[in-house]
Amino acid sequence: MSLTFSLLGTSGRARRGRLHTAHGTAETPAFMPVGTAAAIKALASDQVRATGAEVVLANTYHLMLRPGAARIARLGGLHRFMDWPGPILTDSGGFQVFSLAQLREIDERGVTFRSHIDGAKEDLTPERAVALQRELDATITMVLDECTTWPVEEAEAAASMRRSMRWAERSKAAFAARPGYGLFGIVQGSVWRDLREESAAALTRIGFEGYAVGGLAVGEGTARMVAAAGYATACLPADRPRYFMGIGRPEDIVAAVALGADMFDCVVPTRSGRTGQAFTRRGTVNMRNARHRDDPRPIDADCACPACRTYGRAYIHHLVRSEEILGLTLLSLHNVHYYQDLMRDIRVAIEADRYDDFQRDFAAQQALGDIEPV
Amino acid sequence: MSLTFSLLGTSGRARRGRLHTAHGTAETPAFMPVGTAAAIKALASDQVRATGAEVVLANTYHLMLRPGAARIARLGGLHRFMDWPGPILTDSGGFQVFSLAQLREIDERGVTFRSHIDGAKEDLTPERAVALQRELDATITMVLDECTTWPVEEAEAAASMRRSMRWAERSKAAFAARPGYGLFGIVQGSVWRDLREESAAALTRIGFEGYAVGGLAVGEGTARMVAAAGYATACLPADRPRYFMGIGRPEDIVAAVALGADMFDCVVPTRSGRTGQAFTRRGTVNMRNARHRDDPRPIDADCACPACRTYGRAYIHHLVRSEEILGLTLLSLHNVHYYQDLMRDIRVAIEADRYDDFQRDFAAQQALGDIEPV
Repeated sequence: MSLTFSLLGTSGRARRGRLHTAHGTAETPAFMPVGTAAAIKALASDQVRATGAEVVLANTYHLMLRPGAARIARLGGLHRFMDWPGPILTDSGGFQVFSLAQLREIDERGVTFRSHIDGAKEDLTPERAVALQRELDATITMVLDECTTWPVEEAEAAASMRRSMRWAERSKAAFAARPGYGLFGIVQGSVWRDLREESAAALTRIGFEGYAVGGLAVGEGTARMVAAAGYATACLPADRPRYFMGIGRPEDIVAAVALGADMFDCVVPTRSGRTGQAFTRRGTVNMRNARHRDDPRPIDADCACPACRTYGRAYIHHLVRSEEILGLTLLSLHNVHYYQDLMRDIRVAIEADRYDDFQRDFAAQQALGDIEPV
Repeated sequence: MSLTFSLLGTSGRARRGRLHTAHGTAETPAFMPVGTAAAIKALASDQVRATGAEVVLANTYHLMLRPGAARIARLGGLHRFMDWPGPILTDSGGFQVFSLAQLREIDERGVTFRSHIDGAKEDLTPERAVALQRELDATITMVLDECTTWPVEEAEAAASMRRSMRWAERSKAAFAARPGYGLFGIVQGSVWRDLREESAAALTRIGFEGYAVGGLAVGEGTARMVAAAGYATACLPADRPRYFMGIGRPEDIVAAVALGADMFDCVVPTRSGRTGQAFTRRGTVNMRNARHRDDPRPIDADCACPACRTYGRAYIHHLVRSEEILGLTLLSLHNVHYYQDLMRDIRVAIEADRYDDFQRDFAAQQALGDIEPV
């Protein structure tokens, strides 16, 4: 039997669930740290596991170019390669082709492009995207789709979405079911309600183990994003997981859970960490700031991550200012840990059917701002 | 009572010993990983501890400029700041002033220079070097000395060494003894036997808890280096530890132990790691090399470090080629682990009084070269 999803409970539209996969279970709502090139940036897999993360994401576009999907297959698959025995979700490569690759050309068949690494010509079709993810041994395979940019005309968004739906059908035909593995479709349609509903209905008709909502947070603004995500989610089957791609900042995740989203990914925790930003229960803190230089307190007194248990802000500040690699590692680790704590708190709140309260408390606490300087 | 040293056994001139300090004991011969800016580059303190390292080194020059020795004192000292409860040795700052600082001027009083970070004018005297290391709370304080470069005239080396001996006397006068802490003198004199012997005698007369041999590996070549180190060591008291500063590559350490050296430090394991070089029992291996890209085997099958227990060469190679921070961390960790394994093997060989055999076996194994490609 393919990958399955148990809906354990709800609080309003917020859902508490569990994924059952060939590589173990994962509690939802879940945040998946991003391991673009088969590594969560600056972190070893055991450090990521210790944060409580159960699923990670890897990028097919990067891995097909280097080290190559066939090579990873020969080495026993992505789980062994990067030491992540748990579930791995891979994207289709499409999003990166559209954002990173050069000289791309898209037609009904798929997309051709030149590698941003060596300029080599490559192509990606719905069938090849599925085959590459099979070579990677992805637990969750994503269909190839086109993510429309913003702003976009409705007619263009409609044409693009309908082509993505034809690609979704081809992806489904190309995907060989395996026990505990699954294929997810992706709802497109930009900000238009009728397009989002048409897309969700088309995917539901094809039938997938899970449904993603794509094309969010591309510059359309929070109000339009929440509305679009809401239209999409309302039409998706309740018994399948819903993955909001590329979402997001902590406040975005808290809002998306209230819409019924189950899975998330974003580079923000690791990328912010590499620029000196730390997430805390009282909002983000810039560790480069001189006010930390004499502060022996941890980044976040309520955080049990290795950085907060072991080091003071003065030391983290010193590492960041001295451009020590350890600073990048500790802040990435802290931020991934913060995200996993957030997801655990979200799950607990849904279980207790008090997600409304959670949202209110979360916003109030974030609004407090950082602790007073020493 | 100040820091003490127990000589537990010998094998030829090789010595097996133990340092007793305010921050715990350390087995010798010992290799001290270098934490220039209060961090062993790319590694957290718990990772360094797990390699078996018992003493680390930090650089007074870097720390006096950033974050400042007084700031570290206010924060509870270097041990707390960098989470290293074990012994810490700090250098005097002199070596970095001579190699990194700008516009330096040296006279009998000490040295004035401009910071390489912000150009601020600073000075370093024997008394200030001791005071700074007191603020850092160094377990082992080093005297300020001048490290002569190579090539150098004998007259110049003699004048420099004699000034360093006068500085050593001032350092001793400035150093306030504390239980389990100690001050080490530094033998100079470049490659000349009579200068090295004169320096060792001068220091022994002043009296220190330990004796370093400085001015080695500055370009004089291995033969001259071993000879100079041998002259120095032969004149030092047997009941005090001997520290060969800046030594070295594994083969240099193996040779130096045979001369009676007890302590070592070098940036090689971490710096090499950051350039993709791995130390193994069969010599160094460049992990950037394409021959590793399909190799599932660990860097070194006999190594129990986290990198070798968890990942294959293909993955490490991929990380290095993809410029992932994790690659720098794993190779630094592996190399520090390799060095600690080497020191443990050295200690075991001395205990068994078979250090000659160990040296021969070490050279033979290194000469084997890396394992055959898959």
